[in-house]
Amino acid sequence: MTNKKDIGAQALDKHAEFRGKIQISLKDKIDDISKLSLYYTPGVGTVSGYTAKHPDETRNYTWLHNNVAVISDGSAVLGLGNIGPYGALPVMEGKAMLFKHFADIDAVPIVLNVHSADEIVAAVEAIAPSFGGINLEDIAAPLCFEIEERLKKSLPIPVFHDDQHGTAIVVLAGLINAMKITGRKLEDAKIVIAGAGAAGTAIIKLLHQYAKPSMFVVDSKGVVSPNRKDLNEGKKQLLEYTNPSGVDGSLEDIIKGSDIFIGVSQAGLLTQDMVRSMHKDPIIFAMANPTPEIMPDEAKKAGVRIMATGRSDFPNQINNAVCFPGVFRGALDNQVSNITDAHKRAAAEVIANLVKNPTPEFIIPSIMDERLVPAIADIIR
Amino acid sequence: MTNKKDIGAQALDKHAEFRGKIQISLKDKIDDISKLSLYYTPGVGTVSGYTAKHPDETRNYTWLHNNVAVISDGSAVLGLGNIGPYGALPVMEGKAMLFKHFADIDAVPIVLNVHSADEIVAAVEAIAPSFGGINLEDIAAPLCFEIEERLKKSLPIPVFHDDQHGTAIVVLAGLINAMKITGRKLEDAKIVIAGAGAAGTAIIKLLHQYAKPSMFVVDSKGVVSPNRKDLNEGKKQLLEYTNPSGVDGSLEDIIKGSDIFIGVSQAGLLTQDMVRSMHKDPIIFAMANPTPEIMPDEAKKAGVRIMATGRSDFPNQINNAVCFPGVFRGALDNQVSNITDAHKRAAAEVIANLVKNPTPEFIIPSIMDERLVPAIADIIR
Repeated sequence: MTNKKDIGAQALDKHAEFRGKIQISLKDKIDDISKLSLYYTPGVGTVSGYTAKHPDETRNYTWLHNNVAVISDGSAVLGLGNIGPYGALPVMEGKAMLFKHFADIDAVPIVLNVHSADEIVAAVEAIAPSFGGINLEDIAAPLCFEIEERLKKSLPIPVFHDDQHGTAIVVLAGLINAMKITGRKLEDAKIVIAGAGAAGTAIIKLLHQYAKPSMFVVDSKGVVSPNRKDLNEGKKQLLEYTNPSGVDGSLEDIIKGSDIFIGVSQAGLLTQDMVRSMHKDPIIFAMANPTPEIMPDEAKKAGVRIMATGRSDFPNQINNAVCFPGVFRGALDNQVSNITDAHKRAAAEVIANLVKNPTPEFIIPSIMDERLVPAIADIIR
Repeated sequence: MTNKKDIGAQALDKHAEFRGKIQISLKDKIDDISKLSLYYTPGVGTVSGYTAKHPDETRNYTWLHNNVAVISDGSAVLGLGNIGPYGALPVMEGKAMLFKHFADIDAVPIVLNVHSADEIVAAVEAIAPSFGGINLEDIAAPLCFEIEERLKKSLPIPVFHDDQHGTAIVVLAGLINAMKITGRKLEDAKIVIAGAGAAGTAIIKLLHQYAKPSMFVVDSKGVVSPNRKDLNEGKKQLLEYTNPSGVDGSLEDIIKGSDIFIGVSQAGLLTQDMVRSMHKDPIIFAMANPTPEIMPDEAKKAGVRIMATGRSDFPNQINNAVCFPGVFRGALDNQVSNITDAHKRAAAEVIANLVKNPTPEFIIPSIMDERLVPAIADIIR
């Protein structure tokens, strides 16, 4: 915890020093007034007349071919919850920084003062012509599902809720390599997912499509089952992919004999005893941030070989930054307006295959691996 | 006209070469993975927790202290009219370029797919927490008046419709110096304004506040008068400041004996005969773009000494870029959330005073004059 506090204090200092992380810069210098006649009036009038007549070519005459909006209403920011637009802005600006660093994409942080699905959809639709793609971020479930679905239908540009799909893709990539190490097949695995929010839901859907494993999802009230009366629409939908026999119980009950634990829930949820009750050689993805569902040293004591977290200070970091820069690079370059489920499955395989010889401590490429962006971008077609 | 065609073709080439004029760049390098822990997770969590609790300090930890949105629905772009968001984007990106070049402000072009006052206001209000200021641009009159008024009331950040106020400020600055040269007083002048759109309206309001001159405004149907049945709300309001005796007539009628002509209308509207019918030593601001209401050589033949246009290839260019960079620099730096009429009058005087010895060919500082931004910013408090 001391370390975490230090990082937080250092982060505050760095943010105050630079007063933000991104800025606008010019592609060409205005070294004399004649440049203004070309880039602004009167010359730009000809360009505007042209793009008005040929909207599809606007991308060739503006930054539209290379920009995305990173949009949040601040309703589910990191582990901090509903902290609103001003709380969200530092994270969205950080995400813009990653977009530029990893994929040379010009990302603009947009934080919203509205919080209903109708209002968020209306705002994003209104500003959409300004951008080549939309990265939704840190919007609470279940609202995020409706918002993404509606925007994907209405907009002619790619819309990608990274908390859902970025996470799901990287988790699937990690599991593909964990299966190689343990010699098991994903379709035969029993998987327990803790957390039925945006990430949990997307993970379940992607795993179901990929291998139809036996899955159970647990929220704060226990296993999501058809007998429960308190399920929202999003959780009810998960019954299509999980818990086919309709069992009830706690995490402690359901985890017995399972092969894989995937945590997108909260610190310390998973005990050593629960781990010991799992199938032999269990696989633990404990991704609660900043403190995982079980710490790696505790998991190790309970006999775990293959363990992943969301943190950079342990092996096997499950981080969306492995995935989203390449996904948007490909979508922008190849003019793909719809990121499909097939793209997500292919992206997971591409990521997994970049690790030539998976070992328990190396199932996921580092986010600094420069092969990631071109390899992923190449399959987004 | 050949020259104009050349500039347009060159502009298309340059825009295609660079594919846009602005990009995002990073304030600090991500030279190793530890930087990511500070600028993104986990460190940014501490920053977000802090800004969520202290929204007013978000500007000190993000780019909010230095960014503005340049927002248009594309309904009145340059002289091209209602050409929509894709037509507008090259102009808004050009404006962002000017913001950076002249005032080191990070401006983001936002073009809107909605066109009613309610929808535009809702969209801007929704995204407002992302920006330190709002520059409205190229929105058609009379909608632009209602939109600006509502946003100024509802938002805690400066909102400035540059087509209105930027133009009005620079026109007033030019007139202040023209009065010095001719030894006349603005309060005694008879002024004819051609064009009752966004710019014309703002010019009339600012001149009225500044000196209450005798003013007449002419639209495509003649002098705006209380006898006309076709006036929209915006034009009706202009009767508070113009045409006190309620006369009717054409431009040709009303311009007789006037001291000043201000054109924000269309090419070629003003004839040499009309100019000859004006008061001795008339002042002509012919700002239709790209071709003025009367060309400078024709005006000269009709006896005009003091002439301004919107063009950079003639003396006395009335260009908003003289004004808006300094206005926003001041508003951001001094945390001024409301650009008032007093600010506008003071800005005009500051601009005028930068010309130490006004002459007929030099009544307005060049947009390249580096004293402009600090001088204007200093009075926006």
